[in-house]
Amino acid sequence: MPELRQDFATKEWVIIATERAKRPEDWVRQEPLEPLPEHDVNCPFCPGNEAKTPPEVFSLREVNSQTNGPGWRVRAIPNKFAALAAPPEESPRLVRSRHGLYLQMPGIGYHEVIIESPRHNKSPATMSVTEVVEIILAYQTRYVELDRDPNVQLITIFRNHGPLAGASLRHPHSQLVATPVVPLHIRHRLYEAQRHYDALGTCVFCDMLDFELQEKERVILANEHFAAFVPYAARVPYEIWIVPREHQASFGQSTIEQAAGLAAVLQAVLSRLYHGLGDPDYNYVINTAPHHSSGEPFYHWHLQILPRLTTPAGFELGSGMHINVSLPEEAAAHLRSAGEPDPKKTAED
Amino acid sequence: MPELRQDFATKEWVIIATERAKRPEDWVRQEPLEPLPEHDVNCPFCPGNEAKTPPEVFSLREVNSQTNGPGWRVRAIPNKFAALAAPPEESPRLVRSRHGLYLQMPGIGYHEVIIESPRHNKSPATMSVTEVVEIILAYQTRYVELDRDPNVQLITIFRNHGPLAGASLRHPHSQLVATPVVPLHIRHRLYEAQRHYDALGTCVFCDMLDFELQEKERVILANEHFAAFVPYAARVPYEIWIVPREHQASFGQSTIEQAAGLAAVLQAVLSRLYHGLGDPDYNYVINTAPHHSSGEPFYHWHLQILPRLTTPAGFELGSGMHINVSLPEEAAAHLRSAGEPDPKKTAED
Repeated sequence: MPELRQDFATKEWVIIATERAKRPEDWVRQEPLEPLPEHDVNCPFCPGNEAKTPPEVFSLREVNSQTNGPGWRVRAIPNKFAALAAPPEESPRLVRSRHGLYLQMPGIGYHEVIIESPRHNKSPATMSVTEVVEIILAYQTRYVELDRDPNVQLITIFRNHGPLAGASLRHPHSQLVATPVVPLHIRHRLYEAQRHYDALGTCVFCDMLDFELQEKERVILANEHFAAFVPYAARVPYEIWIVPREHQASFGQSTIEQAAGLAAVLQAVLSRLYHGLGDPDYNYVINTAPHHSSGEPFYHWHLQILPRLTTPAGFELGSGMHINVSLPEEAAAHLRSAGEPDPKKTAED
Repeated sequence: MPELRQDFATKEWVIIATERAKRPEDWVRQEPLEPLPEHDVNCPFCPGNEAKTPPEVFSLREVNSQTNGPGWRVRAIPNKFAALAAPPEESPRLVRSRHGLYLQMPGIGYHEVIIESPRHNKSPATMSVTEVVEIILAYQTRYVELDRDPNVQLITIFRNHGPLAGASLRHPHSQLVATPVVPLHIRHRLYEAQRHYDALGTCVFCDMLDFELQEKERVILANEHFAAFVPYAARVPYEIWIVPREHQASFGQSTIEQAAGLAAVLQAVLSRLYHGLGDPDYNYVINTAPHHSSGEPFYHWHLQILPRLTTPAGFELGSGMHINVSLPEEAAAHLRSAGEPDPKKTAED
């Protein structure tokens, strides 16, 4: 019998299609990916090609290396094909205007790329935790910097891994988009969290995290600062949430200690996905409070990993409701047991 | 300068990324699809293989042909791999239960397939209008029948065309999913429409349609009963809405005359997509009022076509906000001019 499950935080119902459910082994990539070289002269993100990108806005570099030259370990740049234009110098309040019935406004904001490694063939799954810490530090630095612009309402940091996840370049990188509006989807989540707080006086995400850590069945791993679990109402096979254990509305409030804790959990979880499912395509995204809600007691930032193992079709696009053909508890058990990397598979790294 | 546009009905902001915008010719499929045979003995939806599917629940057939045998023109069957289980005979009220903090309920509902043609290599774009009328009649008949079940809250009818749209079988077919809950995404749309009605006393979709028909710039075509246009805040390149010109909340209220009118517009629009863009993958979905809102003055059913020309990535999944790299006005102009099919391309049909 299929089952409907409601997400506790968002109130979305998800169909867990047990009749169509696949086993963990069915999700493993059949054809191994072609290995990449460590350096690609044609890649605009590889060291030596810094002039092919807009000038960097942040980097972590070797001593004595030059800005916009090689020697960086992590490097943030404006996206050359930005979806939003950088604000003009004086950064005026953005004015909405009418087109007949409709509202429009200038597409002002930020769209940046965080190049995660000088090595073309790396990804967080195959990096050291120290390398991943530096990626998180880049996220934090850019977040705090851009959050100062009064036009910025929401900052979304995300990673597209593989072509099915919308990645056009293979060189490891994340992106950041700072929008001048709060997207409706985020408003709806804030609203549901606020209702929970107004009724119960607690953060819905804190309550969810406590319950998951107590039930254990869907937990993959946890450390002092973060816990990773497959949500009860996972929308897609192997959806994973990484949640700070301390209440915190905005990613902008996270500390250096938390950066280290997040890096450790993120690297371990992505490594388990890599080894357990054969390096699946995925997106991850940091879901955080908008600028003006950064102090709210009801919201709680978290990182969502969404593997692209299935294709959303007309039903999902039309109803917004998801059909998940994997059991969350089974996915979590698989990822817990995928902790020991297969020595044959890691040889190439 | 990129532009943000707000959808008038849903209130979603969309980024129209003019800097990254592609021209109409950039969207045309480069490698033509391999032609399909008219009949495939291994296809469970081809005539002669009726025993490979669950027994039919509806068909339009030649005189003297046998139920569950060949001779049908359109045939509806329960999905063999249903996402929701058919209700038991007595159809009891569905009871929610708790799993700790969380809510769950049995996955009861309907999941049906409407096989659109006995010919394996057809699609609505290459059918006659008469053939498409029969598909719409099948939609209407199944909708009205399933809407009688007191457990059914929302009926979603959709079509997945091509692998990028999640279609696993090539034989032309649509699907219907009847859910025992109203998905949150639909509730949010109802809520926005209701707010508009409470303020202005009009249906937001009627207002939008009037404005589009007056502005003309985004209209592709219209007949007495329906109009097709690219929405002002189109979420994806070549998104198209087909809207009934008369106010009507539920698809279940549509008449036989409207079925003919919808078929004519739908066939013409899909034919323009087929000829103008080289048969792109797409989903279409009928967005309709839930069962208990079928008489509302504020909602208005419509059919949305969502071509799968781009891949939603981490930003879209995380923020719910779309980046559209095609100008709606340009897409509409292209589809208006794609009215005359290229004789070379139609030879194969």
